[in-house]
Amino acid sequence: MKIYLRNSIVVWLLAGICLSSVVNAQQPIFKVIPLGVKGGLDERNLSAYLLAVNGTSNYIALDAGTIYAGIQTAIHKKIWNSTIMQSVLQDSIKGYCISHGHLDHVAGLILNSPNDTKKNIYAMPYCLQVLKQNYFTWQSWANFADAGTPPLLNKYHYVTLQAGKEIPLAATEMAITPFVLSHGVQYNSTAFLIRYKDAYLLYLGDTGADSIEHSHDLATLWNYIAPLIKKHALKGIFIEVSYPNEQPESQLFGHLTPHLLLQELNKLALLTGKSAIKKLPIVITHIKPSDDNEHIIQTQLFNNNSLQLQFIFAQQAVPLFF
Amino acid sequence: MKIYLRNSIVVWLLAGICLSSVVNAQQPIFKVIPLGVKGGLDERNLSAYLLAVNGTSNYIALDAGTIYAGIQTAIHKKIWNSTIMQSVLQDSIKGYCISHGHLDHVAGLILNSPNDTKKNIYAMPYCLQVLKQNYFTWQSWANFADAGTPPLLNKYHYVTLQAGKEIPLAATEMAITPFVLSHGVQYNSTAFLIRYKDAYLLYLGDTGADSIEHSHDLATLWNYIAPLIKKHALKGIFIEVSYPNEQPESQLFGHLTPHLLLQELNKLALLTGKSAIKKLPIVITHIKPSDDNEHIIQTQLFNNNSLQLQFIFAQQAVPLFF
Repeated sequence: MKIYLRNSIVVWLLAGICLSSVVNAQQPIFKVIPLGVKGGLDERNLSAYLLAVNGTSNYIALDAGTIYAGIQTAIHKKIWNSTIMQSVLQDSIKGYCISHGHLDHVAGLILNSPNDTKKNIYAMPYCLQVLKQNYFTWQSWANFADAGTPPLLNKYHYVTLQAGKEIPLAATEMAITPFVLSHGVQYNSTAFLIRYKDAYLLYLGDTGADSIEHSHDLATLWNYIAPLIKKHALKGIFIEVSYPNEQPESQLFGHLTPHLLLQELNKLALLTGKSAIKKLPIVITHIKPSDDNEHIIQTQLFNNNSLQLQFIFAQQAVPLFF
Repeated sequence: MKIYLRNSIVVWLLAGICLSSVVNAQQPIFKVIPLGVKGGLDERNLSAYLLAVNGTSNYIALDAGTIYAGIQTAIHKKIWNSTIMQSVLQDSIKGYCISHGHLDHVAGLILNSPNDTKKNIYAMPYCLQVLKQNYFTWQSWANFADAGTPPLLNKYHYVTLQAGKEIPLAATEMAITPFVLSHGVQYNSTAFLIRYKDAYLLYLGDTGADSIEHSHDLATLWNYIAPLIKKHALKGIFIEVSYPNEQPESQLFGHLTPHLLLQELNKLALLTGKSAIKKLPIVITHIKPSDDNEHIIQTQLFNNNSLQLQFIFAQQAVPLFF
């Protein structure tokens, strides 16, 4: 359960963690290239994470808020051998797993669809419905998918996911199991548990805390992954913290604060035991880019890290290895 | 009918126009700050043009594909005295004129709506319908407007425009007259004629040529503006050229090429006479950022400029003065 980073010393310094303590000789299993990490506003840098089995170039995009600008930034940072935008978009991204239909999670997919190649879009029915009824409609964009408003351009194939049921991710070595999340009043988002052989990574789309959402969705997810943490098969969790603790409860809009995240992770720790969850990499996503949010959220997490988790703050085009 | 540019020598060099020939002592009337100029794909740089009467800070946004990244780039280039993102978004932009509902013309407005202040959105009914039914729906985004899917957050007031009818732009010194454009099969876009006292500027959203669209929409517009050109009241035209001449007619998707633009401008010149239209600033927008499109389009326009127009290629955060 070690995490590997390249070109990200700043992240570690921010985390107050000594670089040498987290790099070891064990080969990482997963590689993640964040194409965008912020929770809204900044069109250059919205939620999108490319995930592949380390050593391959068969990526799946976990959400797709920013694609073009993220690939360009990554090319500029020499993340890939390729310097050709088109080849990364068309050849390396094998499909899209979309957590929910809010624009900051799909804009890059929609905007880049004219230059994309045939591939799958994986999502739960409530999310596919938004793609069909709101985006690929010929009113807001041409319909590049294989269902919804005709005529169908049939570039994207919609793959309908079922909660708790694993399916393979085509043209990659990975498989995916989705879980329903609650993201505000009568709105669902999705968590994706990705498996390669006996190793797992968990990505959560936007989510509120069970206590605020009057939901058991996170409890269900924690119950499912606790055994994987206990046997050290889960290599990391990507989860959102949109606002600092000061955000009023009435204005959370289905999001987490450091306090609420720690409340949830303490529930998870009750299931795993503290020693099993210790040092688990928790990658913080979706910070709203207003005021000094990022610094405040970092401080609020590090100052209350009694579980001794490894908090990582995702940065655009800074690869993460698990 | 002179055009003024700041920080844009590169544009002039590209245009092959001597800088000294276009700057004179006459005070410019309009100022335009492009926040985004490209025709799709690149989330950082999509159609959005801030327009104000020169000397004021009361801007209207003509389309809103990229807002946040455009303001940040302009702040970085010291375009404004303000270095505060929020104050430009909230205080300087007094309203939005949206030409049509395609995502590359509205994404910045939608994504920045949580941090915006109360203001008007001006659009034709076919465009407002897309905002209501596709974006501000609670499915793809919270409804920050004052009509459409409840609950209404009432931040934006929809102002329904009527073709050919002028109305004032609230909190600015300008008024606007819209014209219907044809943008592909059964899809309408809009041109906005903006007036300040007896001076005018014309901005066209995406449009095809009448000959391809089987339409008279551009002919109607040319007839309306020809008298303004003849009396030198029209200070410039913003119009799209999405593709080079090589784009097959069957794949124009309601857009223009250099050949088709020149075909249309020659029709306009028949109405104005060649001497009246000579040196009219024609700002080229919406070039698709693929391959070497920008350079090819520039060459194809300059090599066929028998009307002696002033072709300007809009650049993000490079102000234009008219």
